[in-house]
Amino acid sequence: MKYCSNCGQPVTLRIPEGDNLPRHVCDHCQITYYQNPKIVTGCLPVWKNGEDQEQILLCRRAIEPRHGLWTLPAGFMENAETLEQAAERESIEEAHANIDQLKLYTVISLPHVNQVYIMYLANLRDQNFYPGIESLEVRLFHEHEIPWDSLAFHTIHFTLEKYFQDRKQNHYPVHTHTINTRNGKSADQ
Amino acid sequence: MKYCSNCGQPVTLRIPEGDNLPRHVCDHCQITYYQNPKIVTGCLPVWKNGEDQEQILLCRRAIEPRHGLWTLPAGFMENAETLEQAAERESIEEAHANIDQLKLYTVISLPHVNQVYIMYLANLRDQNFYPGIESLEVRLFHEHEIPWDSLAFHTIHFTLEKYFQDRKQNHYPVHTHTINTRNGKSADQ
Repeated sequence: MKYCSNCGQPVTLRIPEGDNLPRHVCDHCQITYYQNPKIVTGCLPVWKNGEDQEQILLCRRAIEPRHGLWTLPAGFMENAETLEQAAERESIEEAHANIDQLKLYTVISLPHVNQVYIMYLANLRDQNFYPGIESLEVRLFHEHEIPWDSLAFHTIHFTLEKYFQDRKQNHYPVHTHTINTRNGKSADQ
Repeated sequence: MKYCSNCGQPVTLRIPEGDNLPRHVCDHCQITYYQNPKIVTGCLPVWKNGEDQEQILLCRRAIEPRHGLWTLPAGFMENAETLEQAAERESIEEAHANIDQLKLYTVISLPHVNQVYIMYLANLRDQNFYPGIESLEVRLFHEHEIPWDSLAFHTIHFTLEKYFQDRKQNHYPVHTHTINTRNGKSADQ
C-alpha cells in the first residue's frame, strides 16, 4: 500500500498511537488502514447411496494456483454473507453442487498466507453437478479412489484425512489445526 | 474506496470479467481490490478454584463502541498469527490475563457488519490480571453475578449463555450461530 484509498495522497507506515504494530496511515485523512486475515470457506460434499456407498465430491482446478489438481469446493468468504452461505455459494460456483445439512468440521489457521480455512461437512442433495468456470472436472470419489498425491492444498488433505478417520467411528467432531508450511510445521491444536 | 492504493489513480467500481460482484478496479495497475469479512477472536477465561467455584473473567470496555459495557477479551485477528495466538494476545492486551488450554467454542457469522467471531474456552492460569489500555476494569464473575443487561455484544451474550448451559452437562461442543441484528434475526445453525 502506497497511497490512501480515500484521498489518493501517499500513506506512511508507522505504529499509530495506542497501537503496537506498524500500519499504513494517511496523515491527510487521519485514516489508519488495517490488513487482516481472510476466511476461505467451503465444504466436503458427501453423496450417500447406502452405508458403504458414500462418495466425496472433488473438483479439479481450472485456475492457478494448483491448476489441474483436485480440491474441495471452497473460496474466499464475501462481505454480507454467513459462513454457511459462503460455503453453499462456493459449491454452486465451482461444481453446481446442491448441498444441505452443513456441519462445521475443520478450522485451520495458515499464518504464513494470512488465511483461516473454515470447512463444513455437507450432504450432496443430487447428482446434477457439473464443472463451474473454475473447475476442469467434477466427480465423486470412493475412499480408495481419492487422488492423495494430486490434492491442491494441505488444508484439503487434512480435511479429507480427518473425514475418513472419523467415518470409521461415525463421529465427526470439529477439528482445529495450524498449517505453517513456511516453517515446514503442521500441528494439531 | 476512491483511489488505487498502489498508484494513487482513481478506481472504478464494476464487475470484473469472470466475477459476479462489483469490485474496485484500477485500470492503470490492473489491480482488483476485494473486501472480505474480518475475524474477531477471543476467549472465555475460566478460573477454576474447585468444582463449584468456577468464575469467568470479563472486561469493562474503555473504548467505543459500547464504552462502559462488559465483554470477553476479543479483538481483530492480525496477519501472520494463528487463531489461538490471536485469542491469547487479546487476553493479554485487554486484561493481562494468562490463559492456556484453548478449545474452540463458538463460531458466529455477523453478515451485517462483515465479521466472523471465533471464540475459545480457556483456562485462566493465575489471578495476576489487570486492565489493559482498552479496559476500565477486569474482574471475575460467578454465574449469578454476570451483568447480562450490561454486556457489550450479542456475540458475548451468546457465548456466555451457551457456556452456562453446557456447564450443567460438563460438555462443551462447538456452537455455530448467525446474528443479523439488522433484520432482528438471531438463529442457531
